[in-house]
Amino acid sequence: MKTVYTPAHERHRPPTILTRGVVVPHWEVARRAEELLAAVQRDGHEVVEPADYGRAPRAAVHDPGYLAFLESAWIRWQKQENPTPAVQPYAHPGRHMHGRPTGIDGQAGYYMATGSAPIVEGTWEAAMAAAHAATHAARLVLDGEDAAYALCRPPGHHAFSDLGGGFCYLNNIAIAADYMRRERGRVAILDFDVHHGNGTQGIFWRRRDVLFVSLHGDPSDYFPFFAGYANEIGEGDGLGFNLNLPLAPGADDAAFLDALDRALEAVRHFAPEALLVSVGFDAFEADPIGVLRVTTPGFGEIGRRIGAVGLPTVLVQEGGYNLEALGANLSAFLGGFAGARG
Amino acid sequence: MKTVYTPAHERHRPPTILTRGVVVPHWEVARRAEELLAAVQRDGHEVVEPADYGRAPRAAVHDPGYLAFLESAWIRWQKQENPTPAVQPYAHPGRHMHGRPTGIDGQAGYYMATGSAPIVEGTWEAAMAAAHAATHAARLVLDGEDAAYALCRPPGHHAFSDLGGGFCYLNNIAIAADYMRRERGRVAILDFDVHHGNGTQGIFWRRRDVLFVSLHGDPSDYFPFFAGYANEIGEGDGLGFNLNLPLAPGADDAAFLDALDRALEAVRHFAPEALLVSVGFDAFEADPIGVLRVTTPGFGEIGRRIGAVGLPTVLVQEGGYNLEALGANLSAFLGGFAGARG
Repeated sequence: MKTVYTPAHERHRPPTILTRGVVVPHWEVARRAEELLAAVQRDGHEVVEPADYGRAPRAAVHDPGYLAFLESAWIRWQKQENPTPAVQPYAHPGRHMHGRPTGIDGQAGYYMATGSAPIVEGTWEAAMAAAHAATHAARLVLDGEDAAYALCRPPGHHAFSDLGGGFCYLNNIAIAADYMRRERGRVAILDFDVHHGNGTQGIFWRRRDVLFVSLHGDPSDYFPFFAGYANEIGEGDGLGFNLNLPLAPGADDAAFLDALDRALEAVRHFAPEALLVSVGFDAFEADPIGVLRVTTPGFGEIGRRIGAVGLPTVLVQEGGYNLEALGANLSAFLGGFAGARG
Repeated sequence: MKTVYTPAHERHRPPTILTRGVVVPHWEVARRAEELLAAVQRDGHEVVEPADYGRAPRAAVHDPGYLAFLESAWIRWQKQENPTPAVQPYAHPGRHMHGRPTGIDGQAGYYMATGSAPIVEGTWEAAMAAAHAATHAARLVLDGEDAAYALCRPPGHHAFSDLGGGFCYLNNIAIAADYMRRERGRVAILDFDVHHGNGTQGIFWRRRDVLFVSLHGDPSDYFPFFAGYANEIGEGDGLGFNLNLPLAPGADDAAFLDALDRALEAVRHFAPEALLVSVGFDAFEADPIGVLRVTTPGFGEIGRRIGAVGLPTVLVQEGGYNLEALGANLSAFLGGFAGARG
């Protein structure tokens, strides 16, 4: 399977994030992509660089003000007196305030929902490159490849149209899905990262041409906390085209695969022309920020069942933070997928 | 003038807050109250302890879920594995998510809008005591005192019905205003803290029995960023009963007093039975987090003009962070007020 990769991700290297009020080392590090790349190379997959798809694909999915913020934030932040090392929000609009600040401090709180998506020098370039990688994988599949894998970093599925957070800036898979939709009928997105794909859900919340199905840890006590509940089924035109399958903490391969079968049944019922998959390995039993207990062979079986659906498929990398196991989990997943394609 | 004070504020001692992604020493420290108390004692004001007004006054203003969160947050936080030193939010619902987490991490993000309102051991007790102090000052005025001063700490005006932030937990002045309203006709709140009183505005946003008028630094590049704009005038029954007078950074005594005259004109026009004042000294020219240039004599003139309105008045302490000048600024303010009462 062709793997789309660019070293541009290395430009995004925020050393720390904020969690529970303290500064901690970032989990979403450049070595993640290096481990994943080494695995695909070991397995003999062809690695290609993404083309530059310009502004249009991201502008079709994201708010202009949000894009302008992401592009300018680092430079504006540096112009502050004694700037801190990263653009970080610290005051949020909440439920009652609707004013729109013009300064960078306020805009950081307006456009970023969490303390885990710091913007540093190079973040914007890396985020654009990741979106191009996902778009390129979509292009390959549109052009006839059976499947392609976008090794995206930073990840994207927590980014809404106008709100970043949770390690994410541009929503790579949403951009790729919308890009495919311009040349195909409806498409489905399956998200099996351990965190609910709240941004992707939000972007397609009112659309019936893109089905969104997510498996993830129960958000009632797990990030992203405020979305991913089973009663979220879309609105307006999108009513019934959003399916959340939250899993109790500690869910193992069997529980995860049961939920996956339900997700894939929904995908089959939707009968899309293509499938896009938010691939996360943070449901892994030894993930440092995970809550589930999926094993490496489990990821193989997940790949096999997704492959068995038989749809043209774009695989887009999201999370997974156990650096020692990332490569093996990707190998297992891609191996399972390829095996099902025969 | 009777000053209501309780040492219970000392139980709230979070050493740090988060701003711009880094941990910094807290500005809202116990010594603030000590400096203010020393000033009123020097000036010969009688100091009284607040009574306990029970749950009813705060429950009339705040959401039950928010109160339950504040009361239980520290104990629940301590039950986490390796708890950090303070309850702090790090993921916020934002504009698109409406799910309600049950865990403490998610609830911290649901109920706290900023990284500057950490909850530590004793925060709840201090916040309750501050609300009792404001209520007690209101009680004194209801019982015939011409004016009373509640030396509240922590402050309250950034606390909404169901959302804390900006050093604030319970909205002391809103609780006192609502308490007075039960025995009097309409009341007005004047807020001259340098930060917009967004929580107070929010609580009375749809009410016409409580006028809210605020002078503050322009929020377009200053906390609270998302409220305090001149176009915020209330809604529904409250339409026209909210007045914001944002001031450009660097505004001096003359500019501040001009705005104060407009504010007091609105108060007089409203013709309330009593006036409550959110007293802040962070518009001071040398406040470490201020943006305006009010002088110590300026606070005297502010006091004089507020006193000259001639209404029964409850003064409630909010911000002010220059520890060396706090006492002098309070003395000037209370002296000006007393002088106008003759």
